[in-house]
Amino acid sequence: MKMFMSDNNSGVHSSILEAIVKANVGHDYAYGNDTTTKEAVERISQLFCKDIDVYFVTTGTAANVIGLSGLLRPFEAVVCCDTAHINVDECGALEKFSGSKILYVPNRNGKIYKEDVKEFLHSLGDEHQSQPKIISISQTTEVGTLYSIEEIKDLAEFAHENNMFLHMDGARIANAVVALNTTFKEMISDTGVDLLSFGGTKNGMMMGEAIISFNKQLSSNFKFFRKQGMQLLSKMRFISAQFIAYLENDLWKENATNANNMGKYFSEELSKFPRITLKNNVETNMIFAHMEKDLIKRLQEKFDFYVLDDKTNLVRLVTSFDTTKEDIDEFIEVIRNTK
Amino acid sequence: MKMFMSDNNSGVHSSILEAIVKANVGHDYAYGNDTTTKEAVERISQLFCKDIDVYFVTTGTAANVIGLSGLLRPFEAVVCCDTAHINVDECGALEKFSGSKILYVPNRNGKIYKEDVKEFLHSLGDEHQSQPKIISISQTTEVGTLYSIEEIKDLAEFAHENNMFLHMDGARIANAVVALNTTFKEMISDTGVDLLSFGGTKNGMMMGEAIISFNKQLSSNFKFFRKQGMQLLSKMRFISAQFIAYLENDLWKENATNANNMGKYFSEELSKFPRITLKNNVETNMIFAHMEKDLIKRLQEKFDFYVLDDKTNLVRLVTSFDTTKEDIDEFIEVIRNTK
Amino acid sequence: MKMFMSDNNSGVHSSILEAIVKANVGHDYAYGNDTTTKEAVERISQLFCKDIDVYFVTTGTAANVIGLSGLLRPFEAVVCCDTAHINVDECGALEKFSGSKILYVPNRNGKIYKEDVKEFLHSLGDEHQSQPKIISISQTTEVGTLYSIEEIKDLAEFAHENNMFLHMDGARIANAVVALNTTFKEMISDTGVDLLSFGGTKNGMMMGEAIISFNKQLSSNFKFFRKQGMQLLSKMRFISAQFIAYLENDLWKENATNANNMGKYFSEELSKFPRITLKNNVETNMIFAHMEKDLIKRLQEKFDFYVLDDKTNLVRLVTSFDTTKEDIDEFIEVIRNTK
Amino acid sequence: MKMFMSDNNSGVHSSILEAIVKANVGHDYAYGNDTTTKEAVERISQLFCKDIDVYFVTTGTAANVIGLSGLLRPFEAVVCCDTAHINVDECGALEKFSGSKILYVPNRNGKIYKEDVKEFLHSLGDEHQSQPKIISISQTTEVGTLYSIEEIKDLAEFAHENNMFLHMDGARIANAVVALNTTFKEMISDTGVDLLSFGGTKNGMMMGEAIISFNKQLSSNFKFFRKQGMQLLSKMRFISAQFIAYLENDLWKENATNANNMGKYFSEELSKFPRITLKNNVETNMIFAHMEKDLIKRLQEKFDFYVLDDKTNLVRLVTSFDTTKEDIDEFIEVIRNTK
Repeated sequence: MKMFMSDNNSGVHSSILEAIVKANVGHDYAYGNDTTTKEAVERISQLFCKDIDVYFVTTGTAANVIGLSGLLRPFEAVVCCDTAHINVDECGALEKFSGSKILYVPNRNGKIYKEDVKEFLHSLGDEHQSQPKIISISQTTEVGTLYSIEEIKDLAEFAHENNMFLHMDGARIANAVVALNTTFKEMISDTGVDLLSFGGTKNGMMMGEAIISFNKQLSSNFKFFRKQGMQLLSKMRFISAQFIAYLENDLWKENATNANNMGKYFSEELSKFPRITLKNNVETNMIFAHMEKDLIKRLQEKFDFYVLDDKTNLVRLVTSFDTTKEDIDEFIEVIRNTK
Repeated sequence: MKMFMSDNNSGVHSSILEAIVKANVGHDYAYGNDTTTKEAVERISQLFCKDIDVYFVTTGTAANVIGLSGLLRPFEAVVCCDTAHINVDECGALEKFSGSKILYVPNRNGKIYKEDVKEFLHSLGDEHQSQPKIISISQTTEVGTLYSIEEIKDLAEFAHENNMFLHMDGARIANAVVALNTTFKEMISDTGVDLLSFGGTKNGMMMGEAIISFNKQLSSNFKFFRKQGMQLLSKMRFISAQFIAYLENDLWKENATNANNMGKYFSEELSKFPRITLKNNVETNMIFAHMEKDLIKRLQEKFDFYVLDDKTNLVRLVTSFDTTKEDIDEFIEVIRNTK
Repeated sequence: MKMFMSDNNSGVHSSILEAIVKANVGHDYAYGNDTTTKEAVERISQLFCKDIDVYFVTTGTAANVIGLSGLLRPFEAVVCCDTAHINVDECGALEKFSGSKILYVPNRNGKIYKEDVKEFLHSLGDEHQSQPKIISISQTTEVGTLYSIEEIKDLAEFAHENNMFLHMDGARIANAVVALNTTFKEMISDTGVDLLSFGGTKNGMMMGEAIISFNKQLSSNFKFFRKQGMQLLSKMRFISAQFIAYLENDLWKENATNANNMGKYFSEELSKFPRITLKNNVETNMIFAHMEKDLIKRLQEKFDFYVLDDKTNLVRLVTSFDTTKEDIDEFIEVIRNTK
Repeated sequence: MKMFMSDNNSGVHSSILEAIVKANVGHDYAYGNDTTTKEAVERISQLFCKDIDVYFVTTGTAANVIGLSGLLRPFEAVVCCDTAHINVDECGALEKFSGSKILYVPNRNGKIYKEDVKEFLHSLGDEHQSQPKIISISQTTEVGTLYSIEEIKDLAEFAHENNMFLHMDGARIANAVVALNTTFKEMISDTGVDLLSFGGTKNGMMMGEAIISFNKQLSSNFKFFRKQGMQLLSKMRFISAQFIAYLENDLWKENATNANNMGKYFSEELSKFPRITLKNNVETNMIFAHMEKDLIKRLQEKFDFYVLDDKTNLVRLVTSFDTTKEDIDEFIEVIRNTK
C-alpha cells in the first residue's frame, strides 16, 4: 500500500540513520551535556547566523507547547488562525500545559494577518480578558500555503509594536525555505521571529524537533520548561546526531526540494484531469483536491491518503522526501483508468 | 574518560540499533498505527502474560507523569517516599501536569511501607485535604534496594483495600527482575501492580519507555493523556522496534544480568578496601560508598561519577549493560595506587 | 452619577441585607456545615423540584469554572459561542483551572445551536483533538437574548445523544425565567440541563452564586473541586442566608421583574427617537443601541454605561432590580435635550 | 452547643456588619473600582506604613494560592513546614493553580528555619529539580506558636540572599501582632516579608482576606491572577467596607486581644488540672491539650472542639473575638465535675 497520507508516514533518510549509528560510541554525558549535542547546537546557530537557544524535543507538539509556555504567563493568550496545529491537532496541550488561552480567528487561506490580531488588542490591561501575548503562525501553513518574507516581517513588527512575540510553527519549515528560494536566516532570523518550532521529522528525520529562541534572555528558563514538560531525553545525543546529519551537505534542502518537486509534479499531473479541482496553488508538498467519490474509492484500494471532507470530496495528498515520480505516476494511472 | 555516572550515559545495545535500522522500510502509518507498534505491544503483553494497555513514550518522566495523571483527578494525591524520582528528579512535572499533590514520607532504605501510607488515610473524604489515591514505588529503588515480591503484594493489597492504586516506577525494572531471579509476570502482573512505567533506556535501549496499565478500563483515556502530554510520536515504529529487539532472545535479561553482575563485582572489589564503606548491600547495578575526599579527587581524574554528599563523601557508582570487568579493574587500580 | 453600566453596580436588596444581619447569631459550623446552609440547599431544591447538588461560591466565574471542571477531564472541551462569558470575560480561568479547551463558534444573536456543535463531533475518539464534552449556553445570553424552552430541550437532547452535557451560565437566570413567564423547574429541571451556574449577585444579592448539578452522581466530587478552586468559604452561612432571603416571597422574581420592566420601558422610550437604533428586541434588562457620538458624550456627563464599539457607536444599557422610571426618564430627558 | 472548634465558627463583629450595611448606598463601580475599595486600600497601606499592592479575596486559601502563584513560575517551589495550611489544608490548591511543587520539611514546633531550607538550595540551577523560590511561614503558626520578629528578619534575609521571597500566611496575623506586642509595620513591613496573606475572617470579619505585596513591581500582574483565580468580586465594596471597619478604632486589635486573653485565661484554668497536659505555651488563641478520653466525651456533650489525635487524646481549643470568660468557665466546670 503506497502512502500519500503524510510526510510523517515516511521512514528516515539513510544519512540520518547512519549518523545515529555513528553516534553510538561509548559513554557520554546524559541530558544534553554530551559533545554531539553541543555540536548540533553550534551547527544550528550557524544555519540561522545568530546566537540562539536550542532545545531538542521529540515531537512537534512538544516544540510548540513548551516553547510557547516558556514565553507565556497563564493569563496571556496566543493568537492564531483556526487551522493552526496548536489549535486543532494537539488535543489542547497548550491550554493544559501553559494554562493559557488560544484565541483563534478564521484563517485566510491558512494565514493570519495583523488585522485579525488587532481586535484582541483592546483587551490589553483588562483583567477580565486573556492578554494577547504571542502571534503564532505556521510556515508552511496547514493548508499548504506560505507567508511571504514581507508578511512575516509585517507580523513580527506588529507583534513587537504591541509588546507581543511572533512564534513560527515550522513543522514543514524546510519546505517553505526551499519554496521561497530563501534561507533560514533571511526568512526567520532577519524577519524578527522570536520563537521557532524547528521541525525535521516530516522531512526525513526520525524524531528531530527543536525549540529555537532568538532572544536568549526570554528563554533563560526554557530548560526547566523542557524538563517539566517531560521532554528532557537522557540519551539526547541520538537526537542531536540527527540534526548534524540533517544540516550536513544541506540534507534538509535536498529532502525538501524533492518533496516540493514531487508536490509540483503531482499537482501538474492532477491538473490535467478536468474532473479534479485543485484547491490551492501548490507551493510545497501538500496538494488539496476535490475529486469524485467513486474515483476516491478506486484510489483508496491502492493508496492511503486523507479525505478531509466527505461532502465536498476534498482529499489531501502529501509528498515526502522519498516520494518518486513512479509513485505519483501509479496514482495518476489509476485516475486515468477510472471512468 | 570512563563513566560510572549513570546507566543513562551508556550508548545503545547493537541489537537495538539494528532493529531501528531494520524498521526503516518504506512508509507506514504514523502515531502508533503501524505494524511494528502492534507487534511490540503484543510482545510486551506476552512478557507480562496479561491483556494490558501499552503506551510508548520517550522519557521515564513522561511514563511516570502521564500514566499517573491518567489515574488521578487533580484533588487526588500520590503517596511515595522522599527519594522517589517523581518527587525529586522530575522538576515537579507531576504537580504541573496532573495538578495533583505528592505526599512524600521519609524513605526506609529507599522504600515505603503501608504504615507510612496509613497516616494519610484519615483525610479520606475531607475536602480540605488532597485525597491519597496512588501509592508509587520504584523498583529498583533510587538507592539501589529492592522490594521483595511479598512486599509488593502487600502494598498492592493495602492499596486496593483502601480504594487506591499501586504504581511502579520501573526505570530499572529489568535489573530488579534479574536480581530477584523472578519474572515480570510474577513480580508485577501477579502482585497486583496497577500501573507500571516500563523503562528500557537505562538498560541498553535508545529511548524506550512504556506506560503499562494492568486494568484496561482505567486506562481507556490514556491515549488522550499521552497526546496532550506531548508524547505521541509520529514515527513511533522506531520506538516500538526497539522494544521488539529488547524482548527478543531476552536481551533485557542479558543486559541487566551484566549490569548487576558488574555491580556485584564492583562492590566486592571495593569492599576489599577498609577505607571504603559500602552503604547498602549491592543488589543491582548501583553502588553507594563513602570514601576519602582525596581518593575521590584522584578517581575523578579518570572517571566520571556522582558525589552525592560532600560532607559524608558519599559517591554513587552505576554499572551498565556494557560495563566490563576491565572498566572496574581500572577504577580499582586507581584506588590501589592511591594512598 | 447614575449608572446603567451593569446590574453588578447596584447594591444589595434590603431583604438580603437583613437576612445577613439576622444570620449573625452565635457560633455555627464552618465550611457549609451550618444549619443556614442546609436550609438554603433545601429551599433551592424545592425551587427546582429536584434532588440536586448545590455548592455556593462567591463569583460567577467560580460557579462556571468549578462546575465545568468537575465534569471535564483536561482532554475534553467545552463548546460555546464566541460571546460566552467563559470565553471572553473570565481571563481564561476555565483553561487554567481545568486544562480544557474552549471551542467557540460565531454566535447567532448570542446563541449556539446544535448545528454549530456538530462540526466538532467528527473528532470524537481522535486523540489529536480535544474531545467535545459540554455545550455551554448563557441564559440570558450576553447580548440580552433568550433561548426558548424548546431550544434548551433541543440542545440538551442533542448533548445527551452525543454523550455530552449541557451547562447553563445563569448569571441572569431570574431575568430569563421572568421574561419567558416560566419556572426554574420548567426551564431548567425539565429541559435536561445537567449543570447550572445559578447567579443571584446581578439580581440584588451581595455575592450569591451557586453551582447546581442535576445529576448527583456526576457531582459527587464537586466538593473537592470547590475547595481546590479556593471557593470554600468558612463563614458560609452568610452566603446561604442570602439565598434563603432571595427565594423567600419570590424576591428573585420581584427583582427580575422590575429589571425587565425597566428594560422594556427604557427600550420603548429609546425607540421613540429615530436617531437611536435598538439592536435587538429587548427581552430582559439589557439594551443595545446605536446612537450618535455626540449624544453619547452628552449622556456620559451624567450617566455611566458601556460603549461597546467606538466605530458603530454601540452602547449597552443595563437596568437593575433597583432601577426606577425616574432614572430612565432623566436619561431620556438628556436625549430629548440634545440635538 | 458552645464552640471552641475554630475562630471560623464565630459570627461577625457588629461593627463589621454595620459597615456592610452602610456600604449599601446606590450604585458604584464594580470589580474594585469603587470608592470604598480605594479607601480600604489606602487604610491598609497606612497600617503597614508602606506603598503596597492590595487585592481582596474571599478565602484564606485564595489569598495564599493566588499570591504565591503570582510570584512563582511552575518549575519553582515553595518551601514550608509540613503543618503549613497550604500543605495540608488546601486540598492541593497551590499545586493545581500554580503547577508548582511544595517542598515541605518537618516542623519544629510549627516553624521552619533557614537550616531547613538550605538542603534545597543545592538544586538551584538543576533542571531536574523544582527550584526553591519562596519560603512560606504561618504567623501565628498552625500549632499556635509564633515567630519572633528576629526570626522573621532572619528568614527574610536568608530568602533574599538566595534570590527567594518570604511569604507569610497571616490567617491569624492580628493575634500574632497583639501577642508580640508589636505593629504590622514592625513585624511585617520592616522585617522584609515580600508577600502577606492578610486574614481577617478568623478575627471577626465576615469574609475578609487580602493579598498584600510589599514589592509592587513583583505584583504588577496580580490582578490577572486574581481574576483567573476566580476571585474578582463584582460587588467588592462589601468586602472593602469590612476592612475599613476592621482597621477603624483598631478593631482588629480589640478582637485579637480578647481572643488572646481568653486563650491565656483558658490555658491557665486548664493548667490547674493535673490530668490535663498543655502541649505548648499558649501565646495566642489556640490551646492544644491532652486529656483523658472520658473527659473528652463528657465535654463533647456540651462543647464542640477538635480531637486531633485519638491515640494521644490531643484536643484543640480555639478562642475567638467573642469568647467570654463565662464560656470558658462553663467548660472548666464540666472538667471539675468529671471524675
